[in-house]
Amino acid sequence: MKQHVDSREIYKTARNLLKERGVELKDIAEIVYEMQSPYESGLKLEKCLGSVEAVLEKREMQHALLVGIELDKLAEKGLLSEPLQSIVADDESLFGVDETIAIGAVFGYGSIAVTTYGHLDKAKIGIIKQLDSKAGSAVHTFLDDLVASIAANASSRLAHHIRDEAEEEEHKRMLVADVHDEGRS
Amino acid sequence: MKQHVDSREIYKTARNLLKERGVELKDIAEIVYEMQSPYESGLKLEKCLGSVEAVLEKREMQHALLVGIELDKLAEKGLLSEPLQSIVADDESLFGVDETIAIGAVFGYGSIAVTTYGHLDKAKIGIIKQLDSKAGSAVHTFLDDLVASIAANASSRLAHHIRDEAEEEEHKRMLVADVHDEGRS
Amino acid sequence: MKQHVDSREIYKTARNLLKERGVELKDIAEIVYEMQSPYESGLKLEKCLGSVEAVLEKREMQHALLVGIELDKLAEKGLLSEPLQSIVADDESLFGVDETIAIGAVFGYGSIAVTTYGHLDKAKIGIIKQLDSKAGSAVHTFLDDLVASIAANASSRLAHHIRDEAEEEEHKRMLVADVHDEGRS
Amino acid sequence: MKQHVDSREIYKTARNLLKERGVELKDIAEIVYEMQSPYESGLKLEKCLGSVEAVLEKREMQHALLVGIELDKLAEKGLLSEPLQSIVADDESLFGVDETIAIGAVFGYGSIAVTTYGHLDKAKIGIIKQLDSKAGSAVHTFLDDLVASIAANASSRLAHHIRDEAEEEEHKRMLVADVHDEGRS
Repeated sequence: MKQHVDSREIYKTARNLLKERGVELKDIAEIVYEMQSPYESGLKLEKCLGSVEAVLEKREMQHALLVGIELDKLAEKGLLSEPLQSIVADDESLFGVDETIAIGAVFGYGSIAVTTYGHLDKAKIGIIKQLDSKAGSAVHTFLDDLVASIAANASSRLAHHIRDEAEEEEHKRMLVADVHDEGRS
Repeated sequence: MKQHVDSREIYKTARNLLKERGVELKDIAEIVYEMQSPYESGLKLEKCLGSVEAVLEKREMQHALLVGIELDKLAEKGLLSEPLQSIVADDESLFGVDETIAIGAVFGYGSIAVTTYGHLDKAKIGIIKQLDSKAGSAVHTFLDDLVASIAANASSRLAHHIRDEAEEEEHKRMLVADVHDEGRS
Repeated sequence: MKQHVDSREIYKTARNLLKERGVELKDIAEIVYEMQSPYESGLKLEKCLGSVEAVLEKREMQHALLVGIELDKLAEKGLLSEPLQSIVADDESLFGVDETIAIGAVFGYGSIAVTTYGHLDKAKIGIIKQLDSKAGSAVHTFLDDLVASIAANASSRLAHHIRDEAEEEEHKRMLVADVHDEGRS
Repeated sequence: MKQHVDSREIYKTARNLLKERGVELKDIAEIVYEMQSPYESGLKLEKCLGSVEAVLEKREMQHALLVGIELDKLAEKGLLSEPLQSIVADDESLFGVDETIAIGAVFGYGSIAVTTYGHLDKAKIGIIKQLDSKAGSAVHTFLDDLVASIAANASSRLAHHIRDEAEEEEHKRMLVADVHDEGRS
């Protein structure tokens, strides 16, 4: 049987690549916080960070990071063939493969994730803005979209979990009320 | 052979449904204008309207409008089964089929259309905002997303056309220069 | 705060609707078995059934079922407006909203799920074939695509789990080997 | 203003890359023929070839080809970083970025194109099969999916055009009949 690349190695590489390219998970968690705090009073940054970490455990997200950041780095070193080299190095406005890869990784968290991604791609909050307005010769054509994708996924994941928790609370309350009622009768 | 529904009838119905539900093509063109005018100096509203009309000629868009508006109207009359009736009538925040249908119609215009859709879905500009903050018993759960979808498609279409025109100009200029050069030699 | 429809109710309704429309979970599990057994020797139908059940716990899948089956039933009773009524009742070949909704629910399980869905949509295995070649006045325009979507998701989920399990085994073996080595030294 | 890469150059490079990697447009046209001939009696291979050529004129398709084939070639030369190098060189079964890029280019032609793509990805007809069962050290991890994507788009495009033509015929017939009727009255 063919030897598979161990998924722990892929996971570790994806996280290291983010760090190497100047993106801390806390930076992404802050975007998630900004997106979700209007919907959940008392939301903590830690919870957002936990959601970002959960998203990074997904294979599709890791693979997208590996491919996208590789292309950014190759373009930075001028190692891609023309005209792809110019397209990626200049972040050509009609080039869409960066977004295609990011959107592909976003589908896994449902339509909320897709719309949140679209919003982040336009609004360019926090670290996404910094990446987009890169200084010097740094190329972040794929990375800024990938970060938006992680943030969108983590936001969508939180939105679903918050609802699940609220419902669980509700179910417990109903159960207590039932027991109470039974005690009375 | 089975009788097909004529596509002119589908087209006419889709346009009439928009009007019936209070959406003028000019309202959508205004969103397109707001999205694209920063990228094209001297952009005219007429050009945006033309792009909206071109988008409405696509089968996928027409079918999406027929299905989405039908569901809105059925919910308005309380004719859907529960719990779907409550979900659609209340525009449940985790319900995503409205967005799925709208996003499905948006894919046809590439990744720029997808991100523009996501942005419009969050920013809720112009008529989209009016539909979303509907008065009384009107249900626009699907319609607001569909309008965002039309606007996103028309914007993406314009972005591509503007580039095509610029290149054509460039090619003509190069041709003239070539002829000029030849004349000289 | 607005009252939300309880997700347990949505889940129960989605499962009941499948049964009501003649689709047993075992029918879907059989498709999953046919798709995955070439890749996992000794795969049991029970495992496929478990994967189908896990897929049905997803909100996006439940919502898709609620909407699609509602439209099928309305078309069956002739209650949709024209020309949508004819389009859905005749399963018009260029109508794509049924597939859009099914594909929307399939994205959650990655690109393997999308391609498996496409394959099932063409190959029409088992219960999908029965639904497609419906007898009499039954309308399954949306249902056949939704069943393909559930089967594709359950197949993709299995493929990922099988890999995860294989890796866990590998990690355990490596651990045992390490302990062994340490014992020796 | 920033200099844009001319789209004619992108188009030419994309076509040359296909040729360089052993894919003739006729090979793709043959897949289209196999997919569409059951639906259109008397379909000619030339018409399929024309549809393939039209698909290749789309920016999204060209960009996808540039990126995908570049990654294949880099992997072939062992120039990607690990673990991406191993993943791409071995066409890892759970790697999905190749399919994400191909699916991204397929959305432009609607849901028929998506399902046809999924089918081709499994059935591996003609040149796709040859690419998939590559000999020696050739890497076609991205290329086989991209060829399936071109073929799926060209098939979907044909399906829509065939319907459009049939309707136009119908409209002409109705017009002639009307004139005839008027002549009589």
